[in-house]
Amino acid sequence: MPTLRIALAQVNSTVGDIPGNAAAIRRWSRQAADAGAHLVAFPEMMLTGYPIEDLVFRNSFVEASRQSLRTLAADLAADGLGDLAVVVGYVDADGPPATSSEAEPGSGRRDASALLHGGEVVATYFKHHLPNYGVFDEDRYFEPGDSLTVVRLGGVDVALTVCEDIWQAGGPFTAARRAGAGLVVNINASPYELNKDDVRLPLVQRRAAEAGATVAYVNAIGGQDELVFDGDSMIVTAGGELLTRAGQFTEQVLVHDLDLPVANAEPNPEGSTDAAAPAVEEAISDNMSINRFAVQTELPKNHDRRDGGIADRIADEAEVWSALTMGLRDYVNKNRFPSVVLGLSGGIDSAVVAAIAVDALGPDRVVGVSMPSGYSSGHSKDDAADLAKRTGLDYRSEPIQPMVDAFLANMSLSGTAVENLQARVRGVILMALSNQEGHLVLTTGNKSEIAVGYSTLYGDSVGGFNPLKDVPKSMVWQLARWRNTQPGTPPIPENSITKAPSAELRPDQKDSDSLPDYSVLDPIIKGYVDHDRGRDELVAAGNDAALVDRVLRMIDIAEYKRRQSAPGTKISGKAFGRDRRLPITNLFQEGKDSSPF
Amino acid sequence: MPTLRIALAQVNSTVGDIPGNAAAIRRWSRQAADAGAHLVAFPEMMLTGYPIEDLVFRNSFVEASRQSLRTLAADLAADGLGDLAVVVGYVDADGPPATSSEAEPGSGRRDASALLHGGEVVATYFKHHLPNYGVFDEDRYFEPGDSLTVVRLGGVDVALTVCEDIWQAGGPFTAARRAGAGLVVNINASPYELNKDDVRLPLVQRRAAEAGATVAYVNAIGGQDELVFDGDSMIVTAGGELLTRAGQFTEQVLVHDLDLPVANAEPNPEGSTDAAAPAVEEAISDNMSINRFAVQTELPKNHDRRDGGIADRIADEAEVWSALTMGLRDYVNKNRFPSVVLGLSGGIDSAVVAAIAVDALGPDRVVGVSMPSGYSSGHSKDDAADLAKRTGLDYRSEPIQPMVDAFLANMSLSGTAVENLQARVRGVILMALSNQEGHLVLTTGNKSEIAVGYSTLYGDSVGGFNPLKDVPKSMVWQLARWRNTQPGTPPIPENSITKAPSAELRPDQKDSDSLPDYSVLDPIIKGYVDHDRGRDELVAAGNDAALVDRVLRMIDIAEYKRRQSAPGTKISGKAFGRDRRLPITNLFQEGKDSSPF
Repeated sequence: MPTLRIALAQVNSTVGDIPGNAAAIRRWSRQAADAGAHLVAFPEMMLTGYPIEDLVFRNSFVEASRQSLRTLAADLAADGLGDLAVVVGYVDADGPPATSSEAEPGSGRRDASALLHGGEVVATYFKHHLPNYGVFDEDRYFEPGDSLTVVRLGGVDVALTVCEDIWQAGGPFTAARRAGAGLVVNINASPYELNKDDVRLPLVQRRAAEAGATVAYVNAIGGQDELVFDGDSMIVTAGGELLTRAGQFTEQVLVHDLDLPVANAEPNPEGSTDAAAPAVEEAISDNMSINRFAVQTELPKNHDRRDGGIADRIADEAEVWSALTMGLRDYVNKNRFPSVVLGLSGGIDSAVVAAIAVDALGPDRVVGVSMPSGYSSGHSKDDAADLAKRTGLDYRSEPIQPMVDAFLANMSLSGTAVENLQARVRGVILMALSNQEGHLVLTTGNKSEIAVGYSTLYGDSVGGFNPLKDVPKSMVWQLARWRNTQPGTPPIPENSITKAPSAELRPDQKDSDSLPDYSVLDPIIKGYVDHDRGRDELVAAGNDAALVDRVLRMIDIAEYKRRQSAPGTKISGKAFGRDRRLPITNLFQEGKDSSPF
Repeated sequence: MPTLRIALAQVNSTVGDIPGNAAAIRRWSRQAADAGAHLVAFPEMMLTGYPIEDLVFRNSFVEASRQSLRTLAADLAADGLGDLAVVVGYVDADGPPATSSEAEPGSGRRDASALLHGGEVVATYFKHHLPNYGVFDEDRYFEPGDSLTVVRLGGVDVALTVCEDIWQAGGPFTAARRAGAGLVVNINASPYELNKDDVRLPLVQRRAAEAGATVAYVNAIGGQDELVFDGDSMIVTAGGELLTRAGQFTEQVLVHDLDLPVANAEPNPEGSTDAAAPAVEEAISDNMSINRFAVQTELPKNHDRRDGGIADRIADEAEVWSALTMGLRDYVNKNRFPSVVLGLSGGIDSAVVAAIAVDALGPDRVVGVSMPSGYSSGHSKDDAADLAKRTGLDYRSEPIQPMVDAFLANMSLSGTAVENLQARVRGVILMALSNQEGHLVLTTGNKSEIAVGYSTLYGDSVGGFNPLKDVPKSMVWQLARWRNTQPGTPPIPENSITKAPSAELRPDQKDSDSLPDYSVLDPIIKGYVDHDRGRDELVAAGNDAALVDRVLRMIDIAEYKRRQSAPGTKISGKAFGRDRRLPITNLFQEGKDSSPF
């Protein structure tokens, strides 16, 4: 049995930064080679970043990806890494680029994986299963591939697959069994969702059984706009044994030795094609042809034995906290912001965002501004100052009353208009600081507030990024309590956690004046938003009927606010943003127009 | 040859307003019956509105559509309209609704057309070709149908098809030829784009030839968020003769008598199925089966002859103006806003938006606010007042200096921060008026400004709707000149058209300080945004290389502003919004990272 030393490069890339990503591939490949690896696998679309969205329609972009791949193969050889097999994701296209006027959207574009060796692109594979649900629009972007690529390396037949290929039965994994592959390499850019790691291992086990082969699953880490990739790379045998597993949210190369079966016959080194045929030992069939390639090199022998180990799973709160800090850090750094600024109200949301920002960027890159009004309680200012002291962020105070008074003196405003005015004056102050000093403004509305529209458009919603966008209020408290139990000074003032939440836009205002208790509200939001449950289903689940009607109406009519809201890290099965696409103009009223069934 | 009187109901519906849409279908069906029609066809998804987007994932919504269809059939019969065949679009699903937890996104949901007659749903058809490009995400939402539905009515075999079916070769139109259909009814919700009407007639002719049958094409009219449907319904013979054509942007029922071939054999009235087979007379094949149904009624004979006539095509400017007024009117009315408010700077953009708003809603529902600063020129105020006098809108003045001064007295601001402050104080004023008085705020940034980010986020970009979002600056002037030639008082002051554009945020500021002339800028934007041309293609087309580099960079880095921008009516082949999906975090630099090819 040949032994292959496999390196899974669970690393970060940046959308559009093709030169930077290519440099990272060379750097991590050097590290893999130094560890004695025979094959290193990088994530899906590592060369271009993922997701590239409509950039795929620009021929100049696709051509830059194709050319950079060839340059990368040559550069790796020049680096003395020609003996290392490097599997890397990129975007490809069939044939020479069409002129824009001829190009059909998505036609001929491929979500591709290449195996580089000896200065050459030895083989390529085009993703077969294209996800077109949730945040994914891949039917818009790509043509599906219909051939499995198998490369003989060190006597082992290695099959290449990409991401969604592993989430669906049939297709490349079934074809891999027909092809007699000993190893299936699956490269991913699989976004984080809470508890998704619980799904991945059984999934990889199922597909390894289907292929009758060991599966090496490598996932990206890092943030890209609303998505965070959490790693969790692993290797699983055909029998379902987990051999090694990387941690979540850690950038690392996982190196592991695999004893793999010798391939049966000698393939044509020029590349040969097997016709499509039904799977022999599986009920599931595929319609894929098989293309065979070979790397004609004796692999260097390692005299030690490497085991990547199995990283411990982390607690849910730690998972979410890591996702939120990584999502914010990468948004700030990849977009080259020196620092962030946010308003500190003394409340729980801004305290948690400040703690996330300090963990992500360090206290020197975080500015917190207390903006008290006449309605602000004493504890608001004290709690904000306490937070600043605990975290070491740059703390300032800008009382809003003089500006609010200038508006009130010149306009006839009352009620909600006066409440919203205060929030908007705060927004203007934060944006002025951003313009003056270059900070990215963070907004702090949680998923519960954003759902029911409990915020002021162009007021507290002002900001370029919102770490809590997908975090329900109940989970905000849970995260705060968890973070305060971690080593070091607890960052969040106890009073911010325990006091009743208030927007403080009028005397003695409390969230509970307008909203039910969050422990009652959040399950309704989760049912309606995350699971598309209708009014009757929610009532049947035990929620109060009148309350359900009220909350659903609030959620529906706040769609226009969400359409203009800041991006923020997705952590749930369905986040606001591209994950949930609803019309603004929508007169459907749950319970009124729908009948029970 | 039997003569069928066909009515094409080119009418408006509202997303989610199933009871209102059903009432409209009954009202327009009555009108069709009164005109002696045997068959009336309503647009795609008439019963639910279009597009319903992620509402399709809610079982309660889909079930409301299905139940309402059956109720509608019974109600039409109760109205005495049971003899009229009514073709209507709705959303359907296979089998009973799954519980939410079981449902796969889009699985089993259908974009459907039904033929109602005699109080019953006689036949249904499921859309075969699903668009998944541009603004469309139908692979996300629907399963494609694979059967053609043919209904024998008055001795004629009538085939049902939906929208995209007519945009692609093969499929239902080829199957209709196999089935021997005499008439193909194609129901649409086809969004307006400038010059799309020039494409439709040849398209319908091509498909009529493919089917070997007369094609009745009916399209919706009305606005839904960023889309406007422009009607342009028509009937074309197999030989390509245009028999009748409705106007654009007019709500009407187009009634026309058609002499159609007698169907060959007697179909099974219970519904029978022909197996799929290759097309006999066409090279293009389809894989659809054919389901046959029959309406067992003698059709009433008309003693007159109806000809729907052929409406004149309108000029491009009239087309765009109609789209913009209809898009705004429907957004305001369907969302139940009493009125709109906008800032009047004296410039061309706000003048054109005010004129559109007055044409759409009447002067009593439009509030214009002049918000002069120390940098506002005398003509700014005069031109705004002149516009108000010409249009009769409700005119106010709110000088911003006292509020701006309050910020400046309390913060240390300079340069851009002071410029943006002025724009943001104006935004706060407009939002305060909105909160106080209930108006929808209109924002007025044109496509050129939005492309290059020449606007202040949360400042002049404040608003719930933007009529000019997809209108390049060059076209704004063109529209202004055209509108002023129409009957009645020219609404737009000549000085607003002729003076050099300026944001007036610092002394003597002109757009030309920061931007090239719009006649130079707009073609670059069109190439890069609308046509995905890269840097080298744009330079090869004759644009200055340094300027292309600068403009492309401006467009790229303004993506974060566009992500938070107001919706506005799409009039071009590619509008900002769901039509163009780009990452915010994107380090690709055209010309730097891409090489010529």
